[in-house]
Amino acid sequence: MTSDGTAVQAPAPEAPRGRRGRRAVDVPALVAGAREGDARSVARLISLVEDASPALREVAAALAPHTGNAQVLGLTGSPGVGKSTTTTALVRALRAAGKRVGVLAVDPSSPFSGGALLGDRVRMQDHAGDGGVYIRSMASRGHLGGLSWATPQALRVLDAAGCDVVLIETVGVGQSELEIASLADTTLVLVAPGMGDGIQAAKAGILEVADVFVVNKADRDGADQTVRDLRYMQSLGGRHSEAGSWRPPICRTVAARDTDNGIDEVLAKVEEHRQWLESSGEGHRRRTERAAREIEAIALAALRARLGDVHGSAALATLAERVVAGETDPYVAADELVAQL
Amino acid sequence: MTSDGTAVQAPAPEAPRGRRGRRAVDVPALVAGAREGDARSVARLISLVEDASPALREVAAALAPHTGNAQVLGLTGSPGVGKSTTTTALVRALRAAGKRVGVLAVDPSSPFSGGALLGDRVRMQDHAGDGGVYIRSMASRGHLGGLSWATPQALRVLDAAGCDVVLIETVGVGQSELEIASLADTTLVLVAPGMGDGIQAAKAGILEVADVFVVNKADRDGADQTVRDLRYMQSLGGRHSEAGSWRPPICRTVAARDTDNGIDEVLAKVEEHRQWLESSGEGHRRRTERAAREIEAIALAALRARLGDVHGSAALATLAERVVAGETDPYVAADELVAQL
Repeated sequence: MTSDGTAVQAPAPEAPRGRRGRRAVDVPALVAGAREGDARSVARLISLVEDASPALREVAAALAPHTGNAQVLGLTGSPGVGKSTTTTALVRALRAAGKRVGVLAVDPSSPFSGGALLGDRVRMQDHAGDGGVYIRSMASRGHLGGLSWATPQALRVLDAAGCDVVLIETVGVGQSELEIASLADTTLVLVAPGMGDGIQAAKAGILEVADVFVVNKADRDGADQTVRDLRYMQSLGGRHSEAGSWRPPICRTVAARDTDNGIDEVLAKVEEHRQWLESSGEGHRRRTERAAREIEAIALAALRARLGDVHGSAALATLAERVVAGETDPYVAADELVAQL
Repeated sequence: MTSDGTAVQAPAPEAPRGRRGRRAVDVPALVAGAREGDARSVARLISLVEDASPALREVAAALAPHTGNAQVLGLTGSPGVGKSTTTTALVRALRAAGKRVGVLAVDPSSPFSGGALLGDRVRMQDHAGDGGVYIRSMASRGHLGGLSWATPQALRVLDAAGCDVVLIETVGVGQSELEIASLADTTLVLVAPGMGDGIQAAKAGILEVADVFVVNKADRDGADQTVRDLRYMQSLGGRHSEAGSWRPPICRTVAARDTDNGIDEVLAKVEEHRQWLESSGEGHRRRTERAAREIEAIALAALRARLGDVHGSAALATLAERVVAGETDPYVAADELVAQL
């Protein structure tokens, strides 16, 4: 991604929110552009999604027929384990295999999110026009340390834009590794030697979300111990102990600017997992479950918005007065509120 | 509360959840018992509320006519500022003035929540039968570091049980001080010298929620500086800068096991605030706003539960399949889900 001319940084939105909101949006043209590999159209669509534009529903409807093809890889791990260099190495390898790749970075510490390494960012922009890689940072607003609510929609944009693989990168703190696992077909959990990650992984439930473990910086002291720790914890059981289930393999990598040792092995395991997802029916189950959760979240947001409308109304004020006066209780009042929707 | 015979620890629920769920609940008898000062009835009602018992709605309806009398005091502050000793001192002073007092502790570090000081807990139980003080710890489950969702209902139980004052104690981290302020008529914010609390207070928005500041451990070095810091921050404005508004006073206390210096002053300021709430109309506004928020929260939970029912149904599964197949988009699917409610 740094020197082989394969990366294009999706351009930042050109106009501030206020102006953008007033501009007419030609959604069909944008979707057509995205499908032809126009980075600017992809960027614009993701911006519409991220800003919860009034055109959001039209965008979703226009994308739907073109989605369901991308393989979604989640990449998570504690700060400092090397998520960004690993992402870079994975993108390089996938590009070498002729795949179109999208990257959604939901990690405030990631250079892709505009955090740390401006150099990388600039270098990526040197290669604008290749169209083989879309890189997009997502604001993580609204979720405590987690993925942006807009991430599933952004994923659909990249899917419709013809990405064979979409990598979602997020820092593994709090809830985010659970969220990434709920979005991804295959979740890679990165650990590094000597960071106490083994024990932390057990604590944080990372064992439960990992489909493939990647022990990065495997040339360092303690790598063998980290692998043993992970194996030991796996032996303790969990969801992977049943027959016919997937037992997450443990890969070793040394991903750095100039060396990608072990990345091919990681991608081989990802491919094995993809085949297992297909043959076991688990892949379809995950995608359906993901869609169900997304539908529910949108429905709940819609209901909350409607309650908010009622909130401003005289109806809720009257109900609240009656509760304060002891004339009714909040449950009966809530029933009346719901009935008014 | 330790040696003057005024405290009764509300007894722990007698039976595990499974059995309790099956037992018939005589709500009218419990409410009648609570109104007569029976600690066991109060405890039982709060347990029903906390466990979201099927009788919850019946409890809420039976309580409603008897609520709206208690003065609700919130007490918050960083760990180590002396919340528990201050609560103890406030309860002692309120009892001395002949008030019936309820305490809801939503603080994992509080001895009242069963955290730290088993000794206090046992000693309080020595005085069972007084009926002048109810102490209840609330699990803070379900909210990130915040107040239990059941707290508003538990407050109604203590209100209906004839408590003149209900003290809600919570540790001031994250959202909890905002939540406590939304529940309380008067919010006391405790700070202590030499803990950098002044600056932290400004950061955390504690200035916005405080109705009365209490500089505890005021015999320590740095107390004057802490008071000056608070005054300076107040001078910078905020919601208290308008004419006719309440300017939070700053009290100094040395609350410890054997000394309650300054507690009478705090209670005098609380009384001043109560009068201001009444004369300004702000008290009624706060109670109505609180009821409105509670109604909304219950309505939203009810809608979420209904979506959950639909979730288990074939309808959502079918919609999810159609989204996965690209036949529809999640927004249209969400519309259909809501329409099925």
